[in-house]
Amino acid sequence: MMPELQTAPFSACDAIEDTAAQWFFDLRDQICAVFEAIEDESGGATEPGRFARKSWNRHNEDGTPGGGGEMALMKGRVFEKVGVNVSVVHGRFPEKFIPEIPGAAESNGDFHACGISLVAHMRSPLVPAVHMNTRMMTTSRRWFGGGTDLTPTCPDPADTNDFHAALRACCESYDPKWYPDFKAWCDRYFYLPHRNEARGVGGIFYDNLCEDDAERGFAFTRDVGKTFLSIYPRIVRRTMHKPWTEEQKTHQLIRRGRYVEFNLLYDRGTRFGLMTGGNVDAILMSLPPDVHWP
Amino acid sequence: MMPELQTAPFSACDAIEDTAAQWFFDLRDQICAVFEAIEDESGGATEPGRFARKSWNRHNEDGTPGGGGEMALMKGRVFEKVGVNVSVVHGRFPEKFIPEIPGAAESNGDFHACGISLVAHMRSPLVPAVHMNTRMMTTSRRWFGGGTDLTPTCPDPADTNDFHAALRACCESYDPKWYPDFKAWCDRYFYLPHRNEARGVGGIFYDNLCEDDAERGFAFTRDVGKTFLSIYPRIVRRTMHKPWTEEQKTHQLIRRGRYVEFNLLYDRGTRFGLMTGGNVDAILMSLPPDVHWP
Repeated sequence: MMPELQTAPFSACDAIEDTAAQWFFDLRDQICAVFEAIEDESGGATEPGRFARKSWNRHNEDGTPGGGGEMALMKGRVFEKVGVNVSVVHGRFPEKFIPEIPGAAESNGDFHACGISLVAHMRSPLVPAVHMNTRMMTTSRRWFGGGTDLTPTCPDPADTNDFHAALRACCESYDPKWYPDFKAWCDRYFYLPHRNEARGVGGIFYDNLCEDDAERGFAFTRDVGKTFLSIYPRIVRRTMHKPWTEEQKTHQLIRRGRYVEFNLLYDRGTRFGLMTGGNVDAILMSLPPDVHWP
Repeated sequence: MMPELQTAPFSACDAIEDTAAQWFFDLRDQICAVFEAIEDESGGATEPGRFARKSWNRHNEDGTPGGGGEMALMKGRVFEKVGVNVSVVHGRFPEKFIPEIPGAAESNGDFHACGISLVAHMRSPLVPAVHMNTRMMTTSRRWFGGGTDLTPTCPDPADTNDFHAALRACCESYDPKWYPDFKAWCDRYFYLPHRNEARGVGGIFYDNLCEDDAERGFAFTRDVGKTFLSIYPRIVRRTMHKPWTEEQKTHQLIRRGRYVEFNLLYDRGTRFGLMTGGNVDAILMSLPPDVHWP
């Protein structure tokens, strides 16, 4: 449930914004519940993790309220560090960004955005890390964007195949071109040119989707969230009990360095957020807990 | 000594380039010798660290030789990870960077650069991390740049004061304005706007220095290197035996996250180097070994 305190300050401008914001909060609740259930099921000597939530308010440059969000952070025995953030923000883009954003010139820079963003770094190097983020953007136009991708330390073809198959099924019920397009977009996006390496094994990435049909874009975006919920917990449950070695853990810490390099050097959301006064804790919640550069 | 193999491929174009390159290699040798001596003096159960050197060659976009450099990396018992890189490179700047670089339009993009770059991350959270980098750049103009700055986990006023005092003395023998100017420049440069935090306790930072008097710029740059050699080992030797707590070590790992954030989000050298096909291992040698994001 979207908590009472969020409804007033994080105001929506029309019906679909209200519905979309509600969806992102609901999805957050479902994900947190499943992840906590996995913590309970996993067993082990340490206590099962629980999400801690913290809300934050955003202000526009002129000091007026600009919405806000809620972070949920869990440090558990399966999920070494997982952050799930929801936000509903509105305001005016800084002048210099307006030309880059579709429809922002026509809205005089005004925007409304809501979305969910999740990154999970897992204790076991045999359980892939994952990222999922979906959002609705409104300027004088309205579109959806997001995606999800898997970053294993020790890639297992079964995990990779099942993850891609679930996303393929999700996309194909909308448009046969979406899966190949969004998969290729993901591969292009999550790439470290200075290393000549992919960040992980991919997934899907989409943006500026369904400007002419918000209902369809929203339906797809909901399905991406549901697909994530159907496939990622399955991968975690079947891999979390596998024994791993110290060598694999060390390799995980080094691979996490690539994750940091990507997010700070290239990720548009991270850089844009930090340069425009976004919530630092929420933005950098994506960074892994322990990292090693050899 | 600059090794024999470096002399031929890393060719200098005139006498001062030859002399400057020689100085940077000599300084590297002096620094490595002192740091290894500290490893020997420190005692302890583990073996004293030793630098491992690795040379690399650079090629221009057209495939012609573009100089190269040598990395020296030590993972010791006092120096958890210290990299000292020297490079002598020449070639042509990519078209899009030419307008940003003084004198590059007039040289048709041609440049020659040599320098030394050092970052030390220390095992004890009571021994400050340090960065030192000096270089000579030649386009149609010639200038010097660089500096050094201290990044303690648990700042000790004595260390900070002595570090600044040594740099002040170094600067004041050249120009009374240099120290306040270069100190302020350092504070502006090593700043994380998204955190509203300084990276460390500062030092000096200078660039485009002495375009009209290369001998003076080079003399100052040599003195910055000598000053570094006089003050930093002193700080290490007096702090390395102090007992520290697990809390201080954890705090160090978190503060190192700020170091990573700065280098990947803001540092011009890091970003420029990675975007222009520089040597990745040499550029990212600055990243701390173990890092924690809470």
